[in-house]
Amino acid sequence: MKKADDCPLCLTAGGQVLWAGALLRVIAVDDPLHPGYTRVIWQEHLAEMTQLPAAARHALMEAVWRVEQAQRDVLQADKINLAQFGNMVPHLHWHVIPRWAGDSHFPEAIWAPAPRRSPEQLAAWQAQKALIQARLPHYHAALRAAFAQDVAH
Amino acid sequence: MKKADDCPLCLTAGGQVLWAGALLRVIAVDDPLHPGYTRVIWQEHLAEMTQLPAAARHALMEAVWRVEQAQRDVLQADKINLAQFGNMVPHLHWHVIPRWAGDSHFPEAIWAPAPRRSPEQLAAWQAQKALIQARLPHYHAALRAAFAQDVAH
Repeated sequence: MKKADDCPLCLTAGGQVLWAGALLRVIAVDDPLHPGYTRVIWQEHLAEMTQLPAAARHALMEAVWRVEQAQRDVLQADKINLAQFGNMVPHLHWHVIPRWAGDSHFPEAIWAPAPRRSPEQLAAWQAQKALIQARLPHYHAALRAAFAQDVAH
Repeated sequence: MKKADDCPLCLTAGGQVLWAGALLRVIAVDDPLHPGYTRVIWQEHLAEMTQLPAAARHALMEAVWRVEQAQRDVLQADKINLAQFGNMVPHLHWHVIPRWAGDSHFPEAIWAPAPRRSPEQLAAWQAQKALIQARLPHYHAALRAAFAQDVAH
């Protein structure tokens, strides 16, 4: 399996490991602005989806859908954001980000500047975020259960 | 097929149509900063990938990989960026964005503020961008050919 000496995703887990298999791992991202933010990281050091054989690509996307489904079911996100960039770390990793209409950046991408909010809006999001954070253990348990059933990864 | 009265991707093509089938269409995005920027838009009005049946989801991703492959082969991008957000327009559409190490936003996401560049860097990117833009007709022809072979979409 190809690894790179200078790649943070080859050298470290890249976050709290929720599940890890031979092909991929699922990581909880510690982001105070975006509760539930999860990454699906391919174990081998490859930069682009089209560098994977079709079956491997399919396995990676199946994992992304599984995370998306758990975010919809357990976190009841208003929207799911998916992204695979790798501009800074060219090692395949998918961002799976649950979004809420009142979150710090909605409807912008989380990489964009945060829109201006009123103090009332900020307070409402803080309260909602606390409820979401309280649900994270259930979300992580659901994810682990979804992946534990699976021997293909 | 579900359509929404107030959805711009139901009401309009959303850009220059490079290819359109029953399930999805491929659009050239007119973005002066990001030559080659392409979207794959699902024809039905649905918000999330996990709302699609597995076969439809697979067909949509196969189209995304085909666009990525053409961007790698014909445009020789340094990196491909993939994203499905739908925060503003909750109708499934994938952004497939070829990136170059010297482009206006690299290594940031294109939705982030552009990093500061020197006049020399800006001039070098302008020159490179002109060469990329000259290749776009070849890129579009390659995409059309890749999709024309395909009857499944």
